[in-house]
Amino acid sequence: MHYNLALIGFGNVARSLARLLLRKQDVLKSKHNVTFSFTGISTGRHGFAVNPNGLDIEKALELVESGKDIFSLSSLEVKSSLDVIKNSQANFMFENSPVNTQTGQPAMDHIRTALELGMHVSTANKGPVVHGYRELTTLAESKGKSFRFESTVLGGAPVFSVMREAFPLAELESFKGIFNATTNVILSRMESGETYEQALAYAQKIGLAETDPTNDVDGWDAAIKVAALVTVLWDTPMTPQQVNPTGIRGITSEMIAKAKAEGKRYKLVCSAEKVDGEIKVGVSPQLVDSTSPLYGMMNSSTGVTFRTDVIIDYSIVLSEKPGMTGGPVETAYGLFADFANIASIVK
Amino acid sequence: MHYNLALIGFGNVARSLARLLLRKQDVLKSKHNVTFSFTGISTGRHGFAVNPNGLDIEKALELVESGKDIFSLSSLEVKSSLDVIKNSQANFMFENSPVNTQTGQPAMDHIRTALELGMHVSTANKGPVVHGYRELTTLAESKGKSFRFESTVLGGAPVFSVMREAFPLAELESFKGIFNATTNVILSRMESGETYEQALAYAQKIGLAETDPTNDVDGWDAAIKVAALVTVLWDTPMTPQQVNPTGIRGITSEMIAKAKAEGKRYKLVCSAEKVDGEIKVGVSPQLVDSTSPLYGMMNSSTGVTFRTDVIIDYSIVLSEKPGMTGGPVETAYGLFADFANIASIVK
Repeated sequence: MHYNLALIGFGNVARSLARLLLRKQDVLKSKHNVTFSFTGISTGRHGFAVNPNGLDIEKALELVESGKDIFSLSSLEVKSSLDVIKNSQANFMFENSPVNTQTGQPAMDHIRTALELGMHVSTANKGPVVHGYRELTTLAESKGKSFRFESTVLGGAPVFSVMREAFPLAELESFKGIFNATTNVILSRMESGETYEQALAYAQKIGLAETDPTNDVDGWDAAIKVAALVTVLWDTPMTPQQVNPTGIRGITSEMIAKAKAEGKRYKLVCSAEKVDGEIKVGVSPQLVDSTSPLYGMMNSSTGVTFRTDVIIDYSIVLSEKPGMTGGPVETAYGLFADFANIASIVK
Repeated sequence: MHYNLALIGFGNVARSLARLLLRKQDVLKSKHNVTFSFTGISTGRHGFAVNPNGLDIEKALELVESGKDIFSLSSLEVKSSLDVIKNSQANFMFENSPVNTQTGQPAMDHIRTALELGMHVSTANKGPVVHGYRELTTLAESKGKSFRFESTVLGGAPVFSVMREAFPLAELESFKGIFNATTNVILSRMESGETYEQALAYAQKIGLAETDPTNDVDGWDAAIKVAALVTVLWDTPMTPQQVNPTGIRGITSEMIAKAKAEGKRYKLVCSAEKVDGEIKVGVSPQLVDSTSPLYGMMNSSTGVTFRTDVIIDYSIVLSEKPGMTGGPVETAYGLFADFANIASIVK
């Protein structure tokens, strides 16, 4: 089976994905008889390119990473992401445009268009999950295709596929986790004596926090991940606004020192619980002690504990990498895993 | 689809499984159109029963739990587990006979017979995994059936299915974990000031440790789990003897107190690493500090950290249950999940 791939969004994650696909190209072919070519690329600032016969992906990576436009690679004149999707003749689209927490756009339109054209879709974008899960899943099913989003919550580490494949007929009762690496780095470094400003500056220096850290430190990134899990795992629509997060700006060095003296830590705790059919959610800084699975998640480590009716307190933890800050490579694997699973090679 | 189920072994785990199947009976039918009946039961001390038209499972539970023989339920004269398998007309067998670390028998013969008769098999028994993985998997495939063993390593919490379904084309580089709950309880309680003897007595009192604790405290239970993971995940046969474990008998209260003062803990660490194609394994007590994902696993909590070429340090942790000691119910879920997955209801 040959796949024509469209990359909508060509930032760090999508470029890591392209490299991962190239690295796994031989094993895909030899083990599963799956081949692929890239037939459409849409970038934020370096133009658009399509070629149904296959684009030179190495050249595209080189052009974008040296700040050049990719239009020279294109066999057709295309001027938008939708143009790329429609002309790529792709049968699998990776959607990695910037997140829009409020509307899920333009990712929603990209995914709708791709599914209507009969493509499978995988996205690392949380927007369309919280704003379009039911609609897009229904649309995908009506076309016999799949809409997947493994990368959206735990940075590419398997979460949705674990609950889908490894917990048959289990009833999820609650989950609790740490979903935002930036705030966890800040709180960890404040425990080691840094001020909030120093810790934030460090998180920005290593490329984890953005110049405007609002989305992380005020809890919105965590809230959209909670909303995504609730939306999918309980099939119950929820927006980050409904989660109504409290961030970490109110946590002072003094509070952290006092907690430390008591053997406790502040964590930006994400939680959801289903009680009598009603779902209660929260994102807020909370004190946890060493009996909590969250206590040991330091620095850029993130993780989640699921409680079900059959397995009680099953945790998944993505630990900080030795000498690394995580990020694009692992997120790229989530997209790759969606592709590999959909290509039916994992049976 | 209707399944005739044979239960070979009818101890705590198998009886929990029977109750779990009854509890999930309606959702199996309504959601997936799967029905089942029990057509064969083999017990260790309470006899054997078969009825291809279905045995009264509630009655069987009642008889065994009041110490009575189940033969009165049988429609045929059967006198051995092999008789039960051959006469049950089952198409799915759960194998839960006692573990034999040295040979994998009699489970090996039970499973071979069942597969040859065209049954799917799920087992919580580690013996046939380390002694027969390749043979039994090959036999199962030749019959178009499955041989599964989700319950063998982490007490029913998904591990094998996670690696199989959620990590497509990832290369496992190493794993490290705590696989034995008894020794973890003992080490945890010694850290709180109990002697080895007191801690062991507690583990026996709550039903975690056996009267003869050798299998746990000398590391053999941990070693067979390491061997099972190596055998399956790297498709490389390995026995517990090759793992050659060191247990916790050499760890004194003084050593634990000294470690605690330094912010460290002894854990019975299970590890395996693949370096240049060679697999190095170990089970031994090791000092871990708070940066290790193993540090926070206290009491009956167990878990494993996988390092792959794509996701670095992904941990799965089964935490101690509030007010519970874990055990049969969760192990039963591993068997149930194998059944549910094989019955193709998770798609």
